[in-house]
Amino acid sequence: MTRPVNDTLLRALLRQPTDYTPVWLMRQAGRYLPEYRSTRERAGSFMELCQSPALATEVTLQPLARFPLDAAILFSDILTVPDAMGLGLSFVEGEGPRFATALRHEDQILALNEAPLEKLRYVFDAVSEIRHALKDSVPLIGFSGSPFTLACYMVEGGSSDDFRHIKTMLYSRPDLLHHILSVTAASVTRYLNTQIEHGAQAVMIFDTWGGILSTPAYHEFSLAYMRQIVAGLQREHDGERVPVILFTKGGGQWLSDLADTGCDALGLDWTVDLAQAHTLVGGRVALQGNLDPGVLFGSPQNVAAETRSILDAVGNCTGHVFNLGHGISQHTPHDNVRVLVDTVHSHSRALRAGNTAEAAKHADVANR
Amino acid sequence: MTRPVNDTLLRALLRQPTDYTPVWLMRQAGRYLPEYRSTRERAGSFMELCQSPALATEVTLQPLARFPLDAAILFSDILTVPDAMGLGLSFVEGEGPRFATALRHEDQILALNEAPLEKLRYVFDAVSEIRHALKDSVPLIGFSGSPFTLACYMVEGGSSDDFRHIKTMLYSRPDLLHHILSVTAASVTRYLNTQIEHGAQAVMIFDTWGGILSTPAYHEFSLAYMRQIVAGLQREHDGERVPVILFTKGGGQWLSDLADTGCDALGLDWTVDLAQAHTLVGGRVALQGNLDPGVLFGSPQNVAAETRSILDAVGNCTGHVFNLGHGISQHTPHDNVRVLVDTVHSHSRALRAGNTAEAAKHADVANR
Repeated sequence: MTRPVNDTLLRALLRQPTDYTPVWLMRQAGRYLPEYRSTRERAGSFMELCQSPALATEVTLQPLARFPLDAAILFSDILTVPDAMGLGLSFVEGEGPRFATALRHEDQILALNEAPLEKLRYVFDAVSEIRHALKDSVPLIGFSGSPFTLACYMVEGGSSDDFRHIKTMLYSRPDLLHHILSVTAASVTRYLNTQIEHGAQAVMIFDTWGGILSTPAYHEFSLAYMRQIVAGLQREHDGERVPVILFTKGGGQWLSDLADTGCDALGLDWTVDLAQAHTLVGGRVALQGNLDPGVLFGSPQNVAAETRSILDAVGNCTGHVFNLGHGISQHTPHDNVRVLVDTVHSHSRALRAGNTAEAAKHADVANR
Repeated sequence: MTRPVNDTLLRALLRQPTDYTPVWLMRQAGRYLPEYRSTRERAGSFMELCQSPALATEVTLQPLARFPLDAAILFSDILTVPDAMGLGLSFVEGEGPRFATALRHEDQILALNEAPLEKLRYVFDAVSEIRHALKDSVPLIGFSGSPFTLACYMVEGGSSDDFRHIKTMLYSRPDLLHHILSVTAASVTRYLNTQIEHGAQAVMIFDTWGGILSTPAYHEFSLAYMRQIVAGLQREHDGERVPVILFTKGGGQWLSDLADTGCDALGLDWTVDLAQAHTLVGGRVALQGNLDPGVLFGSPQNVAAETRSILDAVGNCTGHVFNLGHGISQHTPHDNVRVLVDTVHSHSRALRAGNTAEAAKHADVANR
């Protein structure tokens, strides 16, 4: 029996009734927290932080000590898998990720092998250590980048404004891109299954760049490989169902196709109308999202109002996990995070009690 | 009588039958053309190029000399209006636009006045000069940025990754943002009407950044002001209807709302499924788009195939203008542009003749 004491997240992801709406935040362990910046400094480089199970555990737990969040998410990077494939990941301050090798030539691409799991041991060790530290308080979410998103970084060699190299490959040598995606999808499947074996109680696939594709290209080069991963995942561990969340940023036009992959839940970016999404796919999957992270730059009163508005969009329906529509910004004031979390809890409880006036009052109290 | 000899674009924008599908390309006069780079060098700075009616005319005509495009578009920048408001526009090589003043403080914002038209005379002179040079061969499209898009640059002071300053304003002082947007919308309306008086035969509003907003924020801060502009535009000049095109990049989820603004046509980015968009709003507006500009990095064979696929999505329906889903990249090989334009013309003619086999053959010839 490994069910956490607070299983609200897991229940919501499986569209079971909950007492309130669970909430966690993408990138909830991160630079907006001074305690994170302090650990990060001690670690040396960002990669050293990721590669130390003890320090990864420390930063994973930091936001939970500050806010009553309903889930922890493994602290790691989406690019660990291509790094383990031998591409040589590093982070240049202020510039983002860089690979020593950009994958552009046929020879290199055909020589690409699945990521050896032993090179990712630090991730699995972190999962075990975080689970131990959490003491079954809240569930732990594991994650990976989607094959297409990983391929973007692998082919571009890092971040990109125009994705010129991967688009060139996609539109001139789609066979090479499919090869990269196949090897990567197999690696991601084993990576996530091993996270599950080590204790991840839900897993999320971040398709950060699927939204740069045309509809047919999205189906062929991103969605198909996520579907393949979902089909290959171990969906039960220790007698508990392990929910799978898919998130394509900029994928609001493809929600119905995403819902048909066999996943349990969809992450929604903040451009999506949550009520419409709920009408469209709420009968098939849970929905996670979708407050604009930019709301957290505004006034606390407005944070509470915008948070209530997201909750009101689904009302009393099951299957909603509150989150931002994208990772929290490093410039976010913590007080607004507290207002957000408290408002989600109090307003969703009041909605379930059928008392929206009470909900509004609670939320106002959160603005003190 | 100022109807151009080739009025295919105007007819398509008004959903009238045409012999073939007209095509033009966003940013068709630009850095991918060596002749543009040469004029740009002679001009000195980018702003000097924009501000010289003679040089703006020269570069506007360059792509038409190379490719049988069905429209010219005024060479200018979307930020001329805030520059004329006194914000001091400049372009730093490799960094994009910069304003000397970023609009963030209440005093500055409340002191903002409509752009004086005399400061934009160079644009209107360019419109007149281009019309004269075109000799009524193809129509000239005028344009402006949308109020929200202009406000993004005005508040951020230039380009932005996270739009932190405008989101902060939107979520803490929406009254200030509304003030900027009101003044800007009034300026843009007069700016476009004056372009029309000087000879612009269609006008397009580029809402480059509306797609960074949540659905309710998009309605309140971007769409509402575009609707206001559309209502204020002179829709007929010299006895000819002047079509209005709205384009929100990343606005694929809001097409029905965009179609209800009273505009004649919608620009579509490449993520939109054109066939679905046609089903949804094709009875109300013409559609312009939507090939992924990244397709032009691929093989000529594939350029032809992807171009045909876009044309096949609307088949023989009226009201389609072929374009890219975003501006053409500076890294685009010209030969692929020729393949694109030739394929649009030959395949759409064959589709109208009900001969798709012939269409495919013509397209293959274009790949020689």
